[in-house]
Amino acid sequence: MIKIAIAGYGNIGRGIELAITQNEDMELKAVLTRRDPSSVKILTPNVPVYSFSDADKLKTEIDVLILCGGSAKDLPEWGPYFAKRFNTVDSFDTHAKIPEYFKNMDEAAKEGGKTAFISAGWDPGMFSVNRVYAHSILPQGTNYTFWGPGVSAGHSDAIRRIEGVTGAVQYTVPYENAVEAVRSGEQPDFKTREKHQRICYVAAAENYDKNKIEAEIKNMPDYFADYDTEVNFISMDELFKNHSGMPHGGFVIRGGTTASGLKQIIEYSLKLESNPEFTASVLVSSARAVVRLSAKGENGAFSMLDVPPAMFSPKTPEELRREML
Amino acid sequence: MIKIAIAGYGNIGRGIELAITQNEDMELKAVLTRRDPSSVKILTPNVPVYSFSDADKLKTEIDVLILCGGSAKDLPEWGPYFAKRFNTVDSFDTHAKIPEYFKNMDEAAKEGGKTAFISAGWDPGMFSVNRVYAHSILPQGTNYTFWGPGVSAGHSDAIRRIEGVTGAVQYTVPYENAVEAVRSGEQPDFKTREKHQRICYVAAAENYDKNKIEAEIKNMPDYFADYDTEVNFISMDELFKNHSGMPHGGFVIRGGTTASGLKQIIEYSLKLESNPEFTASVLVSSARAVVRLSAKGENGAFSMLDVPPAMFSPKTPEELRREML
Repeated sequence: MIKIAIAGYGNIGRGIELAITQNEDMELKAVLTRRDPSSVKILTPNVPVYSFSDADKLKTEIDVLILCGGSAKDLPEWGPYFAKRFNTVDSFDTHAKIPEYFKNMDEAAKEGGKTAFISAGWDPGMFSVNRVYAHSILPQGTNYTFWGPGVSAGHSDAIRRIEGVTGAVQYTVPYENAVEAVRSGEQPDFKTREKHQRICYVAAAENYDKNKIEAEIKNMPDYFADYDTEVNFISMDELFKNHSGMPHGGFVIRGGTTASGLKQIIEYSLKLESNPEFTASVLVSSARAVVRLSAKGENGAFSMLDVPPAMFSPKTPEELRREML
Repeated sequence: MIKIAIAGYGNIGRGIELAITQNEDMELKAVLTRRDPSSVKILTPNVPVYSFSDADKLKTEIDVLILCGGSAKDLPEWGPYFAKRFNTVDSFDTHAKIPEYFKNMDEAAKEGGKTAFISAGWDPGMFSVNRVYAHSILPQGTNYTFWGPGVSAGHSDAIRRIEGVTGAVQYTVPYENAVEAVRSGEQPDFKTREKHQRICYVAAAENYDKNKIEAEIKNMPDYFADYDTEVNFISMDELFKNHSGMPHGGFVIRGGTTASGLKQIIEYSLKLESNPEFTASVLVSSARAVVRLSAKGENGAFSMLDVPPAMFSPKTPEELRREML
């Protein structure tokens, strides 16, 4: 049995807890929280909740610690701390800072003789894996990544910070005609606003000017200004009733040509009813890979690009060759 | 530069030759043939063609030998012979015999201190990789593989062996409604005839009974009897004009649920204007992986399931983390 602890018990942490129940070779041994442990109610009976400062209790108890923190502030701080002490898996997803995070995690894990699996999930994660395979197989071509239709937590948060907004959910929606153009092998050049639309459902306090809120959303730099943004005002009730799921997904498509000029299209797509539960499922299968890497003495940091597919599987290499190759 | 030789110069061999021109870190050093070398005209100038029996000439000349032979008779015989002498890549694709072939190649490669990359391509190959990832991430669910629309060489050959048939091309076509059902997350149970249709274009000699040929095709065990097969008689001219391409492709779809009961769909698809050129492109990127495995002293047999994605890429791990992770 692979003995797992979770550090950080939010949407992803709960997703990890659920995903472990689907894997017969894994068990949850503990949850670590920054909150008061007595205030954290988890789903699994008879599993202790400890405070972060008690992590060292788990040193001989677990095989891997899954870090469920944010990439902006949590992981840059906790990651190297825990990577010295435990084999870890995380979903660090600030693409621009991955090289720096990798370096810090690599040093910490090597210092502790541990293995750190960074940036697991779907983007970065399975989408990255598919970008690399597709580029390697078809060197002449173009990679396209589309996200959605799905809820962007970052964009929803950005709207909620506007004065007068009481609630908001933002959907990122790829334009079907853009996806179809890529699928046809055209290899078009897109402007940012030509790939994705942003559709917002916003609840506003009564005495605020909706036109002003709408303008503030549409002109927000980085988040919305470069997109065609649709803003729909609805009630908090409707927001709660119709927009509380966390669906997501997207496509990685490479349109390429082999040397005789023939078109070859590779596509990987995800359609997820729950983004956090799917991400957690990738993290849990990555925990299996980490334990195997660690058993081989492979210390330091790894991403999904550095690990063979078979290492994620509950099946043995022999079973995989017989049943899935 | 990765120095490559090709053993066997048919559709795949020519595809390898083309694919090498798209990879700046590779060069073709020689072609080996079972035919009279002087009868084999290759595309690349100033590259020698040798007979199989002269292979040992290349021992210090090349980094990897790509074996382009059939899985029924060629590879079981040549594979272990060459794997003792060279790092090899092949596309052995008789699924039921992969475990036996792996064992033979593993022993031969280890005996020679070499690395043998078996069953590269798309199925087995990239489809296998995606079956394994999807099953590992979503343990509760079902994998579906659909092939086509595309030309099946084996089925076309089987028709050509019927008396009175002068030419034939068989298309394997997945039923759109079956693919859609899987994409919706239904996880249906299919009978063989419910997933794929077989559409045949057949040219017959003048004095033969077309009804008899059609019946013989439709009732052929293993190949057609379990399918709804459509037979169209056309002229050799039409066959040559409209059906001489080798398009193929297909889908690997996993419909799964995470533990709260939410649906998650993973799909990998290929749409290929040339099956042999795409397969060759996978083999060539696998040659890069073999050279890297060999440099690390990793001898024996490997499949795509055993090799990290980064090993196929012309980019360094640092570049991949910065640009693609």
